[in-house]
Amino acid sequence: MKIPKSITSLIEQFGRLPGIGPKTSQRLTFFLLHFPKEELERFAHALTGLKEGTRLCAICRNVSENDICSVCDDPVRQKNKILVVSHPLDTFAMEKTGYNGVYHVLHGFIDPLNNVGPDELFIKELIKRIELARESASFEPVEVILATNTSMEGESTAMYVAKMIRDDGFAPDFVKITRIARGLPVGGDIEYADDITLSRALEGRIEY
Amino acid sequence: MKIPKSITSLIEQFGRLPGIGPKTSQRLTFFLLHFPKEELERFAHALTGLKEGTRLCAICRNVSENDICSVCDDPVRQKNKILVVSHPLDTFAMEKTGYNGVYHVLHGFIDPLNNVGPDELFIKELIKRIELARESASFEPVEVILATNTSMEGESTAMYVAKMIRDDGFAPDFVKITRIARGLPVGGDIEYADDITLSRALEGRIEY
Repeated sequence: MKIPKSITSLIEQFGRLPGIGPKTSQRLTFFLLHFPKEELERFAHALTGLKEGTRLCAICRNVSENDICSVCDDPVRQKNKILVVSHPLDTFAMEKTGYNGVYHVLHGFIDPLNNVGPDELFIKELIKRIELARESASFEPVEVILATNTSMEGESTAMYVAKMIRDDGFAPDFVKITRIARGLPVGGDIEYADDITLSRALEGRIEY
Repeated sequence: MKIPKSITSLIEQFGRLPGIGPKTSQRLTFFLLHFPKEELERFAHALTGLKEGTRLCAICRNVSENDICSVCDDPVRQKNKILVVSHPLDTFAMEKTGYNGVYHVLHGFIDPLNNVGPDELFIKELIKRIELARESASFEPVEVILATNTSMEGESTAMYVAKMIRDDGFAPDFVKITRIARGLPVGGDIEYADDITLSRALEGRIEY
């Protein structure tokens, strides 16, 4: 049986997306066959418009509509509290916690196996932000909160970023580097927790 | 935080696809942000071209590139063996078995709760095909194989199609109606099979 070319080419496109296998991309394509033409065009328009409508914020490198993103542009946000994440999506998750500082998006992890070195990430830009804060008139101390994943890549990226900041020779009372807590997730079961998580939870214990 | 409009509109479009929740559509959209512009345009092009490149085969109503699909147009295929399925995707699955007859695609199930009655499906077109075969010079007997799902909707659709054919008063030796076997899947475990499947497997037992 010969499958129409317009169908196979859309199946192929869906198949390139993460987490979408051949069966799912077939199902999605055949589902879209029932869409009216205008709806398909709206979908296509959203795809082509994706790049045109977005850029990286000149300060924090998060995805933004304008040159300066809405967070960096918000006078209410604490500018001397910089939360460092790997991906734009991570900032969405952080926003839900009510965090009131600003962000810095690295756009990835240091991953030598996949040829991603420190230069591919926006680490230098973070250092420059801290330098600018030091040179500014207000001279408020800065806190850098390392909020990369607690995976192997996330930990090594956090370690590298911390090292880069320390190597720059800022006064220790000017830059404070912190790392999000690693421990048992809320609702977690000690019996089923892995040993590394448990030992991190013990190390990071706080006064009660 | 304000998320750029071009991002939210693509997230929205992905969210309309089956099996894609809000988290997945966010992930897909941010994944596509790393695609070069030309790749996004190729994706968009595949979407808009989907309808233009496909139509329904005039004979079997399967999705096709031409007015007559490659199966109906194939002289090697047995034209008097018509396998009735609910969806175009089902024909792909059937092709893998080496089936050498033709298809008839109903495009759905009879589903009164969702306002899908028999008139919404291509059942009349199936009857017409059998009538045409009867009027043809060759007058070969026809086998209609009901291969809708073995779910509630699939069974009732199969029953309805069979009733429609019988009501049309074809000679019983001209049209033979069969239903795919319901039983234990290959590799199945009797211990874990549900009772309905087991009783169907018993009923449908064949000589050994």
